[in-house]
Amino acid sequence: MPLVTFLPSNAQVEISSEENILRAAIKAGLHINASCAGTGVCNKCLVYLEEGEVKGQKLPDGGWKACDTFPETDVRIRIPVQSQMDKRSLTRALPKKATRWIQSHSGISNIRPKPVVEKFAIKLPPPTLSDPASDLERLQREIKQGKLQDITLEVDAQTLYRLPVALRDSNWNITVSLMEGIRHDIRRLIRIEDGAKKDEHFGVAIDIGTTTVSAQLLNLHTGEILSGASDYNPQISYGEDVISRVEFARKGDGLSMLKDKIVNCLDGLIDEITSKVSCKKESISILSVAANTVMCHLLLGLNPYYLRAAPYTPVAVEFPPVRAKELGLNLPEHTRIFLAPCVASYVGGDIVAGVVGIEMHKMPELTLFIDIGTNGEIVLGNQDWMACAACSAGPAFEGGGIQHGMRATTGAIEVIHIHPETLEPMSLTIGNKKAKGICGSGIISLLAGLFMTGALDQRGKYRRDTGSARIRSGREGWEYVVVDADATAIEQDIIFTEADVENLIRAKGAMFAGYLTLLESVGMSVNELEKVVLAGNFGSYLDLEQAITIGLLPDIAREKFFFAGNSSLIGARAGLLSWEVNRKFIEVGGMMTHFDLANSPSFMEHYISSMFLPHTDMSLFPSVKLG
Amino acid sequence: MPLVTFLPSNAQVEISSEENILRAAIKAGLHINASCAGTGVCNKCLVYLEEGEVKGQKLPDGGWKACDTFPETDVRIRIPVQSQMDKRSLTRALPKKATRWIQSHSGISNIRPKPVVEKFAIKLPPPTLSDPASDLERLQREIKQGKLQDITLEVDAQTLYRLPVALRDSNWNITVSLMEGIRHDIRRLIRIEDGAKKDEHFGVAIDIGTTTVSAQLLNLHTGEILSGASDYNPQISYGEDVISRVEFARKGDGLSMLKDKIVNCLDGLIDEITSKVSCKKESISILSVAANTVMCHLLLGLNPYYLRAAPYTPVAVEFPPVRAKELGLNLPEHTRIFLAPCVASYVGGDIVAGVVGIEMHKMPELTLFIDIGTNGEIVLGNQDWMACAACSAGPAFEGGGIQHGMRATTGAIEVIHIHPETLEPMSLTIGNKKAKGICGSGIISLLAGLFMTGALDQRGKYRRDTGSARIRSGREGWEYVVVDADATAIEQDIIFTEADVENLIRAKGAMFAGYLTLLESVGMSVNELEKVVLAGNFGSYLDLEQAITIGLLPDIAREKFFFAGNSSLIGARAGLLSWEVNRKFIEVGGMMTHFDLANSPSFMEHYISSMFLPHTDMSLFPSVKLG
Repeated sequence: MPLVTFLPSNAQVEISSEENILRAAIKAGLHINASCAGTGVCNKCLVYLEEGEVKGQKLPDGGWKACDTFPETDVRIRIPVQSQMDKRSLTRALPKKATRWIQSHSGISNIRPKPVVEKFAIKLPPPTLSDPASDLERLQREIKQGKLQDITLEVDAQTLYRLPVALRDSNWNITVSLMEGIRHDIRRLIRIEDGAKKDEHFGVAIDIGTTTVSAQLLNLHTGEILSGASDYNPQISYGEDVISRVEFARKGDGLSMLKDKIVNCLDGLIDEITSKVSCKKESISILSVAANTVMCHLLLGLNPYYLRAAPYTPVAVEFPPVRAKELGLNLPEHTRIFLAPCVASYVGGDIVAGVVGIEMHKMPELTLFIDIGTNGEIVLGNQDWMACAACSAGPAFEGGGIQHGMRATTGAIEVIHIHPETLEPMSLTIGNKKAKGICGSGIISLLAGLFMTGALDQRGKYRRDTGSARIRSGREGWEYVVVDADATAIEQDIIFTEADVENLIRAKGAMFAGYLTLLESVGMSVNELEKVVLAGNFGSYLDLEQAITIGLLPDIAREKFFFAGNSSLIGARAGLLSWEVNRKFIEVGGMMTHFDLANSPSFMEHYISSMFLPHTDMSLFPSVKLG
Repeated sequence: MPLVTFLPSNAQVEISSEENILRAAIKAGLHINASCAGTGVCNKCLVYLEEGEVKGQKLPDGGWKACDTFPETDVRIRIPVQSQMDKRSLTRALPKKATRWIQSHSGISNIRPKPVVEKFAIKLPPPTLSDPASDLERLQREIKQGKLQDITLEVDAQTLYRLPVALRDSNWNITVSLMEGIRHDIRRLIRIEDGAKKDEHFGVAIDIGTTTVSAQLLNLHTGEILSGASDYNPQISYGEDVISRVEFARKGDGLSMLKDKIVNCLDGLIDEITSKVSCKKESISILSVAANTVMCHLLLGLNPYYLRAAPYTPVAVEFPPVRAKELGLNLPEHTRIFLAPCVASYVGGDIVAGVVGIEMHKMPELTLFIDIGTNGEIVLGNQDWMACAACSAGPAFEGGGIQHGMRATTGAIEVIHIHPETLEPMSLTIGNKKAKGICGSGIISLLAGLFMTGALDQRGKYRRDTGSARIRSGREGWEYVVVDADATAIEQDIIFTEADVENLIRAKGAMFAGYLTLLESVGMSVNELEKVVLAGNFGSYLDLEQAITIGLLPDIAREKFFFAGNSSLIGARAGLLSWEVNRKFIEVGGMMTHFDLANSPSFMEHYISSMFLPHTDMSLFPSVKLG
């Protein structure tokens, strides 16, 4: 029987040569989009053959339809991101929460635009015999009039080519774009346009996540957000998490492949947000990017290999502005990319931008900033000091390492309620489709529900004596049946095993041990926290009570919690609109003391104590009453 | 009969279709190299067909052999520069002169190298868990140790790609190249090399003249000149002087053609000077270029059109440093080109570099700097002030507008002595070949000789009563026969007409009127001059007494005269070796007050008075005794 190996997960399954690849994926527990039930009409189940022989339908781009492709030998099949996930679910509305959103508390939204690239409309006196100064001298003279008289002006050689023609075609009436230099009193002339074009000035704020990429188009003249779009990071096809991408980058032309993927993704998003509002790409001056350290390296094409292992050294944590065109983006010569600086290999520019985005650097209160994703980064501090760490929580909250875990896409169970007596579940899926698996928020509500009903004990083991048929001893130990096979889209029971529970306890334990370690390092305790800010997409869908119940969040007054949404995009937007915020990134990044938890004995101690639901030390969780 | 039009001169001649193109050129009075007397073996008489039909030998590069190509219709034929001139004559030794050379008086030759790009060998401590700073931070930390601690460091994004590999391959032992930024306390990291490479550091000093291009390779570590080479500026094929090149640049892709020509020429010279001493081009950090304003524009690909007519506006007179590669040069990414700044459309970076090269900006004495070429630029002043002007002398001293004038190449008469009684000439040619024409130094010695023997009067007219057969009434008025047809290489009498004399008087008159106008503008006279520096190739071959005799140079004490040779190359070299000199170019360029002589009534008055040999006011020329 042919052995099918799926990439990037390396999941393997044997099938007969009468079975198609879609069937193989279902057997392997992998998801491939196929809304036509394998009848060959929806064209969504695209896969790529990397090794071996198949027969079936080859598509013009070299891909194959999984539902109509049969292995003839052992094969290696790559599932591209568009076949795994459904982009529509990226746009689901944020839940309404009683708890407050941080934006209303932050002044960032009121920034008067003063971006890194400013435009000035200039009218010049034409040359005469008594004033025959060169075009450039004449322009420099006018630029230095008024408020810019103390600056030093650098000139992009490219702008010189346009200068004589622009001046004369426009009747000495032009608009110049000046970019802030390495110091604020240095400006660089990066663009010259005919006529008064001061208000045709746009920028793009970008958050490059390991999973999701979001972009917003802003009017840099008014500060208005004009449009937005999101997509899955297409690098997913080459590795689900940062480590596997670093490994992929190391091999052959892996680095340039990953770079091209993200560049194409950004090109697509920029096409989308500009065409939505008929903005010319020519008018985009700046891209402001917030991304984790690995994503920054991959975007710039920098070898991320040495940040993978001790001593975890990135090539750089501050990046010079780069021409978008130099990276291969389909944007004009003058467009520059600014990346928010990183702190360390696993605390990146997304965190720095997020912290600045919510204005934590202006908060007098002791604040804990939590971004729960694959990794889980935390920042503790206030306007005077900050400490940060990556918790290595693992991808459990994104569905990784959970048997039926999946990303928050169509068909994912996002909420589960467990009946306290019958232990029967009531669940809702994203898009109200038949369930394919459970996403992060569903997993937490399931874990919290099973724990609160007493179906799970503090060690994360199922009670053997509930009498419920839903709790059973399965192939891999005790498990809870969330959805019966016939009610699912995957033709098998969706279950939640003790191994899943253990993974989740490890993940939440790593987060909680992180909080305690940072607090301890400054001699403080959980109760002294004055503010907790939950950042990131996952945080937005989190149920506060459930998260506290399982020990993922500290059990403190609920009004201390704030939701930030995509704080890293908020930060990217703030950096786009303001050169001061852009400089603040560097300052704040520089003030963050980084703790390497992996090598901290104190962290290990706290981690072990956190391996209970909610914690071994129940005094830390006064409001969690065990049933 | 087919009409042959030769480009770039537009000279026309009708020939029968049995006559070849070489014959047509001889008839038209044009020179094409052909050392085999038209036998078809030397392959030097390459021409290009631009319009019309010919039959003959087409060469692989699309050119034709003039000696074996016959017009079938009216044709337009372009003579490339290599077919017009013989590169060997560029290397003729400078004449030995009693008069002093300025170099011995200038300190430039003793510069301790401190170039715009400096190399530092750096040994870094490898990262550890307790010091896991990024590669770039680690490098910045080391760079800022010691004497560079107050600098701001900019980083070329390109250097980041190399950084992680270079550090580890070299065992944390690298060499960095830092370029001075827009301010001296800003440095830009432009290159990273494995190991200690401080002494592999080279630069090229380049003088781009309208006619000749010279380059020298320097060791930037020791300051030593390693090799040199010269070539004709291949743009000559598209226009002999700057104005005709500006016109050519205006049409179609003329600008990019002219740019490509000079870029190819520089590539060729750099190949030559590096291979002579086995220097790797990879190790070239800087090109330091001195060139007139039009040549600067054409090298950078800037449209020079608006400097052609009033108010004579160049695109720029100061140019930002440019990557050599960006201009299309076959040099590595890190190599930068620095151009000496210009003053105005017709006083260029060659003059600024020349003035700094001879250290006129340090001279306390009232000094007149004279560069006699096509245009004739002059600078008057001292360490405290400078005034400059272009004299529009025309190309007479380069042989232009003189019937048998030619450039100083093989076969050109370079010295002529006239017997005071018989008026018989005695002449010498460059390379001791049969004469083809007369070059600048020959023309001046001829004019001075004819004047001193009384064959020419003060108005530049031949005495009709000498009785010498050499003075005769020719087709275009009275003329002197310099060489009889049978003794020439061009099969016709080489003559010197009254029209030629008039052109020369205009040219020398323009120069002299320039001196007087600048002197007058500061209330001074010729006698107050303390130093006169003769720059440029032409100046090097000038006979001082003859030049004074005809009124080209002021009649002052001979010990006040100095010869500078190629001062613009000397300046380019100084700028290459020293960032301070490089900055001095801008300062000196900025301190030069430019006089537009064409619109000066005072100049016109002096010009008219200078239309005699040597001058209407003989009191200005006390040592010239009329016979």
